[in-house]
Amino acid sequence: MSYSEFEIIARYFNRFSSSRYNVEKGIGDDCALLNIPEQQTLTISIDTLVENVHFFVDMHPTDLAYKALAVNLSDVAAMGASPAWVTLSITLERINETWLELFSTSLFKTLDDYNIQLIGGDTTHGPLSLTIGIYGLVPVGFSLKRSGANLGDCIFVTGTLGDSAAGLSLLRKQYYVRDLIVYDTLIKRHLRPVPRISQGQALRNLATSAIDLSDGLLSDLTHLLTASKVGACLNLEALPLSIELQNNFESKQALIWALSGGEDYELCFTVSEINRNIVATVMNSFGIPCTCIGKIITESEGLVLLNNGKPIEFNNKGFDHFNV
Amino acid sequence: MSYSEFEIIARYFNRFSSSRYNVEKGIGDDCALLNIPEQQTLTISIDTLVENVHFFVDMHPTDLAYKALAVNLSDVAAMGASPAWVTLSITLERINETWLELFSTSLFKTLDDYNIQLIGGDTTHGPLSLTIGIYGLVPVGFSLKRSGANLGDCIFVTGTLGDSAAGLSLLRKQYYVRDLIVYDTLIKRHLRPVPRISQGQALRNLATSAIDLSDGLLSDLTHLLTASKVGACLNLEALPLSIELQNNFESKQALIWALSGGEDYELCFTVSEINRNIVATVMNSFGIPCTCIGKIITESEGLVLLNNGKPIEFNNKGFDHFNV
Repeated sequence: MSYSEFEIIARYFNRFSSSRYNVEKGIGDDCALLNIPEQQTLTISIDTLVENVHFFVDMHPTDLAYKALAVNLSDVAAMGASPAWVTLSITLERINETWLELFSTSLFKTLDDYNIQLIGGDTTHGPLSLTIGIYGLVPVGFSLKRSGANLGDCIFVTGTLGDSAAGLSLLRKQYYVRDLIVYDTLIKRHLRPVPRISQGQALRNLATSAIDLSDGLLSDLTHLLTASKVGACLNLEALPLSIELQNNFESKQALIWALSGGEDYELCFTVSEINRNIVATVMNSFGIPCTCIGKIITESEGLVLLNNGKPIEFNNKGFDHFNV
Repeated sequence: MSYSEFEIIARYFNRFSSSRYNVEKGIGDDCALLNIPEQQTLTISIDTLVENVHFFVDMHPTDLAYKALAVNLSDVAAMGASPAWVTLSITLERINETWLELFSTSLFKTLDDYNIQLIGGDTTHGPLSLTIGIYGLVPVGFSLKRSGANLGDCIFVTGTLGDSAAGLSLLRKQYYVRDLIVYDTLIKRHLRPVPRISQGQALRNLATSAIDLSDGLLSDLTHLLTASKVGACLNLEALPLSIELQNNFESKQALIWALSGGEDYELCFTVSEINRNIVATVMNSFGIPCTCIGKIITESEGLVLLNNGKPIEFNNKGFDHFNV
């Protein structure tokens, strides 16, 4: 059966999703039309996922749709913004109805869960890839940025680190665990990362800088340090590792994943010493850990890793698509 | 030489381009931050171009960068909006420095020509494709939409039709012309379409509906008719054909290209009879033709083609990526 671009959009992507009052025109014109509420700053982020680079050909379309959105929502979370609209550009090698049905159902479920409206996009023919644009709103002056970290600030991370990389290693059959519950937990951390939207919003008045952890702690923290023109000292023994990671893998491997595994989609942010306890209280109310893992130091000191007080070297700088 | 994603962005895409006062944060954070002026509606459009589907492997990167932007600018023009910002997601098979240098130079030149700022994007590894997001502004209540055409409205098109398809046929060596100036003119119409930004803005108070011609007149006009719930009667002898097209191709082939060739990126719009002469005057001030090619009729009458008053059948509905 042959579908045209317009038929694919009509059949799978032009559903009624969460409908937001400030969308004057969604799908179906040359552009979408949006009326931004007063005193709100618009946030825009675009991410492309390519088959066999960012995901494998056998990734279930239900997981793919979820994760593609979650990855973008994580960028919105890192700005302290509230997600509002999404555009989807999808390039398909061929039309597989089951695949499209599963993909679009999962997409719209996730959009509804976050009260986000699909406002436009593009369906084209070619090697499978997805480009998602996500648009959020944050009150003027309250966005979190990578720049802004100050000398002496505490460095926090939400959740636990390294689980996603461990899950990926299980999916790739590079490692095995006996316990199926552990297996499922770690796989889920890789396939179903939870964007820290609420936490990002709660940090609007508290964090001095923030970034989400997509490429790995060391790589992403380095971006934050560069933007803020500061250095950092991390205490490796303070890194939050899940029970699943600690009990099923060698501690050295767990540490490598926590530092550079990537795709955890937790938030890394800085807070002035005076707000440290408030942050711990506020963030713990969300039911996931929030851990101080180090301090901001001067730019000339660089990025220092301490293992129980002793400096160590670490060369793996995290996942980078062109250098892997 | 191996470049990382960050190095490619830094080297080729993080240049100083037109800088706009309402960009709080451009490239370099998890999201771009934009402060939309009051009483302006935001327009968003996303387009993906895939190698060997939308452009050929031998397309010069200078032309590719220009055309990728022009195609998106044409969507902004069709809304009567003013382009403001762009995001570029580029997927590269490999790093070719000369290609990247030519592509990015052409991209930034075009951005500067239109006073548009590159605010973000993504560089990934995979089969060559480009996804461009374009963001524009239009005063609240003044956007042009596909819906809005009324019974009796005149249907206008800007420029001449079919030149782009003729240019493509020359590039593909399906046709030949003797005159090199004709060759260059038609090739340029294919590779360097001029988005009708100023014309779109001039139509804000005049047109009842508008669309840009990307897939071909019949295909795009059908979208406008569907959105407006009306039909149309076109006078084929009124279709504006360039001298180059008329003098170098059979009239039947020229007509096919004008009706369904695609990629002309002219505007097609409707105007109430009372404004017909004003529109002709306003639009002619831009120095390109603007021609009334027919009338809006009732939806039940459908799309009627008249050749010197006689109805004719035409089945080629234009270019559609999955059905070609």
